[in-house]
Amino acid sequence: MLGRLACFLGIGTGWFLEMKKEYIKDILKRKNKDVVLYGWIKSKRVSKEIVFLDVVDSSGQMQAVVDKKNVSSWNLANQIAPESSVLIKGVLKRGKNNLEVGVKTIQLVGDAKLNLSPRPRQDFDIFGSSYADYVLKNRHLFLRNPKLQAVLKFKHKFLINLHKWFTEREFLFLDAPVLTELLLYDDDSAFKLDYSDKISGKQEVFLSQCNTFQLEAAIHSFEKVYNMTPSFRAEHSKSSRHLREYWHLKVEIAWANLDDLIKIAGEMLYAVAKNTVEECGNELEVLGVKVDLDKLKPPYKQITYDEALKIIHSKGNKMKWGKSFGVEEEMILTKEFGENFLFIRGIPCSAEGFPFSRDKSNIKITRTCDLIAPEGFGELLGTAEKITDKKELLERMKEKGKTTPEQMKRYQWYVDLRDYGIIPHGGIGMGIERVVRYLLKIPHVRDTISFPRLYGRYPNP
Amino acid sequence: MLGRLACFLGIGTGWFLEMKKEYIKDILKRKNKDVVLYGWIKSKRVSKEIVFLDVVDSSGQMQAVVDKKNVSSWNLANQIAPESSVLIKGVLKRGKNNLEVGVKTIQLVGDAKLNLSPRPRQDFDIFGSSYADYVLKNRHLFLRNPKLQAVLKFKHKFLINLHKWFTEREFLFLDAPVLTELLLYDDDSAFKLDYSDKISGKQEVFLSQCNTFQLEAAIHSFEKVYNMTPSFRAEHSKSSRHLREYWHLKVEIAWANLDDLIKIAGEMLYAVAKNTVEECGNELEVLGVKVDLDKLKPPYKQITYDEALKIIHSKGNKMKWGKSFGVEEEMILTKEFGENFLFIRGIPCSAEGFPFSRDKSNIKITRTCDLIAPEGFGELLGTAEKITDKKELLERMKEKGKTTPEQMKRYQWYVDLRDYGIIPHGGIGMGIERVVRYLLKIPHVRDTISFPRLYGRYPNP
Repeated sequence: MLGRLACFLGIGTGWFLEMKKEYIKDILKRKNKDVVLYGWIKSKRVSKEIVFLDVVDSSGQMQAVVDKKNVSSWNLANQIAPESSVLIKGVLKRGKNNLEVGVKTIQLVGDAKLNLSPRPRQDFDIFGSSYADYVLKNRHLFLRNPKLQAVLKFKHKFLINLHKWFTEREFLFLDAPVLTELLLYDDDSAFKLDYSDKISGKQEVFLSQCNTFQLEAAIHSFEKVYNMTPSFRAEHSKSSRHLREYWHLKVEIAWANLDDLIKIAGEMLYAVAKNTVEECGNELEVLGVKVDLDKLKPPYKQITYDEALKIIHSKGNKMKWGKSFGVEEEMILTKEFGENFLFIRGIPCSAEGFPFSRDKSNIKITRTCDLIAPEGFGELLGTAEKITDKKELLERMKEKGKTTPEQMKRYQWYVDLRDYGIIPHGGIGMGIERVVRYLLKIPHVRDTISFPRLYGRYPNP
Repeated sequence: MLGRLACFLGIGTGWFLEMKKEYIKDILKRKNKDVVLYGWIKSKRVSKEIVFLDVVDSSGQMQAVVDKKNVSSWNLANQIAPESSVLIKGVLKRGKNNLEVGVKTIQLVGDAKLNLSPRPRQDFDIFGSSYADYVLKNRHLFLRNPKLQAVLKFKHKFLINLHKWFTEREFLFLDAPVLTELLLYDDDSAFKLDYSDKISGKQEVFLSQCNTFQLEAAIHSFEKVYNMTPSFRAEHSKSSRHLREYWHLKVEIAWANLDDLIKIAGEMLYAVAKNTVEECGNELEVLGVKVDLDKLKPPYKQITYDEALKIIHSKGNKMKWGKSFGVEEEMILTKEFGENFLFIRGIPCSAEGFPFSRDKSNIKITRTCDLIAPEGFGELLGTAEKITDKKELLERMKEKGKTTPEQMKRYQWYVDLRDYGIIPHGGIGMGIERVVRYLLKIPHVRDTISFPRLYGRYPNP
C-alpha cells in the first residue's frame, strides 16, 4: 500500500538502530520527555491539519499526533496503512484525555500490504463462529488481536503459576517424552509416526496420549512428579472442547489414595486460578470477564457415577451404564447442581483407561473421580488411583484388548514396575485449555491456544 | 523373593493408610520422636542380633535398626529383598554416626521380585559405556539411581530458572505446537506423521524441528516470546550429543539485531546456570562435580567462521568452506581457546536454515552466531537475525530446495508475515540437554533426559 516508501527505514538492509528499550506502558509513566516509540498503527484519523495515529505495542496503546507543518511526516502518516510498523520520535505531551506523543519524525519500518477486513487489532467479535474460518486461516496475523492476546497472556501466567505451585511443594518436573510406545487408549485413537531407524529398523512409535507411564516409573525415585507438555488425540470428533494437540498437566504422587488426590487437585486448581486471576486484571478487563473465585473454592460436591446416572435418567435421557458422559449428560448434571463444580466418583471400568485401579468393593468401577465444570464447559480434570497388583493390571489390559504379543512387549516394562518395590500411587490429569476456557468463558477451546489443530480444519500452521 | 509375605500390607486391596506426610530429610531434623517412614530398602546388613536396613526416599537416606527380640519384624527384615518398599514405624534415636530409627514394626508394601545386578541404587558407574545397554533397557528402574536422580533434579531447576528469567523480563511463553507443516530443515530430516482427517483428508504433518515460525508470528503481538517443548530430529546420526527428541528453548525478540541477541543469550545462560548451580549444591555433590561459574561469565570471545576455518586448516584439517563444524573441528577450536566459551559468527548460508538473514556485506554468510562449549561439548546455542524482506526469503527458500507448489503452500503464511507490518527481529535457540550435559560433565547426552530416544537403540520407552 505504500510501496514507494517501503524502504524508508532500510528494512531488508539490516537493523542498525538501538534495540527497543521502552514500551508504551513505560513511556506513559513519564512526562515531558523525548520519546522513541516502536509499534504498529492500529488506526488513524486524518483531519485537514493533523493526522492522529493510534500506535500499539505489546504493552499498550497511545496516540501520536502529526502536524501538517511537519511536511514529510504528515505525508507519510497520511498515506500509511494500518498494521504497518513504525519508529516515531517526538515529545510526550498532555492531550485531551491522555498523554500523547507530538511527532517530530516518523519512519516506516514495515509496510502492511495485505488487505484484511476486519483487521486483527480492530474491534470485532473474534470469538464469534461467523469469523471462525477467516480467523483460523489467518491465525498468524490474528495473534495481534487484543482479546486473543489477553487469553494467551492469561494462559502463560496460568502455566507459570502451575510450575510455581508444584515446584514450591517439591514436585519434580519430569521431562517425559512425546514419542512413546505406550498409550492410555486404543492404538487407533493415537497418532502413529513414520519412524524408522536404519540400525534397529521400523519401530512402533506414537504421540503420547498421556505420560502416566513414565511418571509412574519416576515416583519410585522422586515420589512427587508432574509434567506439562502437549498431548495428542487422533479421535475424529468435532466439538467446542477438543483439540488434537493440547497442553496436558499430569501429576503422579506416591503413597496417595483417591481422597488425597481429590483434595490436592482441588487445592491446586483453586490456588493457581486465584493467583492467575489476581495477576491478570488487565487481561480480564480486555475480555470483559469477571471470575468469581468463591465458586472455585474446594472442597467440591461429590456424587457417584450411579447417582449421576439416576439424575440423568430422571430427565428422560437413556444413556446406558458403563458409558462416559457426553455434552448432553453433563449439561443435565450441571443444571441440577447450578454454578458449582461437581466431582463424579467411581467411573465404570469400561469407560476408563486400563492403568486405573478397580474398586475392591465393586470391581466394575474404578477408583477415579472426574471434575465437571458448570455451564457445559465439561470435564476439566480427572484423578485416579493406579493399579499396583500385576494380575489386576494384566486383566485390565486384556479387557481393553491389549493382548497381542507385540502389544504385550510394548507394555512389558510398565507391567514389570509391579515387581520391583511398587507402592500405592495415583495421578491427576488436567486439560490446560479447558480450564482457561472455563475461567475466561471462551466459546470454543480453539481460542485458548495460539495455533489450534482441529479435526476437520485445514491447513493448520 | 518374599512371595509369602507379599500381601502383608494388603497392597492390591487399596491404600487405606494416611498419605505420606514426612520425608526422610524432615525426620532427620527432629529428635526423640515417633517415626513413620515410607521408603525403599537400598541395602541391608544382617548380624546375629540385628538387621540394619538402609532406607531411602526421594529426599535422603537413613538407617533402620531391627532387633532380634522383635521377632516378626526381624524375620521380615532378614528376608526382605533390596528395592522392596516398606512402611516402618519406630523411634528416632542417635546411632553411631547419625540419627537412626529403632524399628517397632515393619510392613512390606511392595516386594522386589526382579533380580537386577547392579541394582539401581547401588554405587556403580551408571554413566559408563559398559553399562549403557543394560541401563537403557531398564531405564524405568534406573531412574532410581542417585546420580541420574541428581541430573534430573538439576535439569528441573534449570528449566524452572529459565521460565523465571524470561517471565521476569516480560517474555510471553507461547504455546507453540509440536505438529506443524513448517520445517527449519529438509522434509527428510523430520519425522512425518500418519495424519488423517475424515473431513479435510490427508495432511502434510511433521513434528516440529524448531518453532521459530510460530514465534516469529507472535512477536507482532507480544514482541518478546519464548517456548520450551520437545523438538524432533530424524537424522540418522549416532553421537554422544544427539537425541531424536530433545528439549528446545526458543526465543524470539522484536526490534533486536545480532549483537543484541548475543548479549541477551550470554546474560541468560550465565544467570540461569548460576541460579541453578547455587540451588543444587546437593546434586552437584552427588555427581562429584564443581561448576566454575567464572568461566561462564559473558561476554564470550567471538571469532568469525572464516577465522575459525583458518585455525582449523592450520592444524591440517581440510574441511571445506560452507560446511558446518563437526566434533573434530570443534575440538580443534576449543583446544585453541582453552576452557572458554567461543562464539562463531557469520556461518555460511549453505550451513544455516533459510529464515536466517544474509549479511548484506557478504551475502554468502548469515547474520548468525553460534556458541561452542569447551572440551568437546559442542554447540550449546545459536542466535540469528531473521529475514524481513520477502524477496530475500523466497531466494533462500529456493536455495534450500523448498520450491514445489505443495511446499510453497505450506510456507505461504510465513512468507506473508513480510507483507503485514514486519519488523526487525531475531531469535535464540538452545538445546537444554546439551547445556545440562556441559554443566554437569555427563559423558553422553542420553543421561540428561529421563527416557532418551536415540538413533540405533530399541526399544525406547
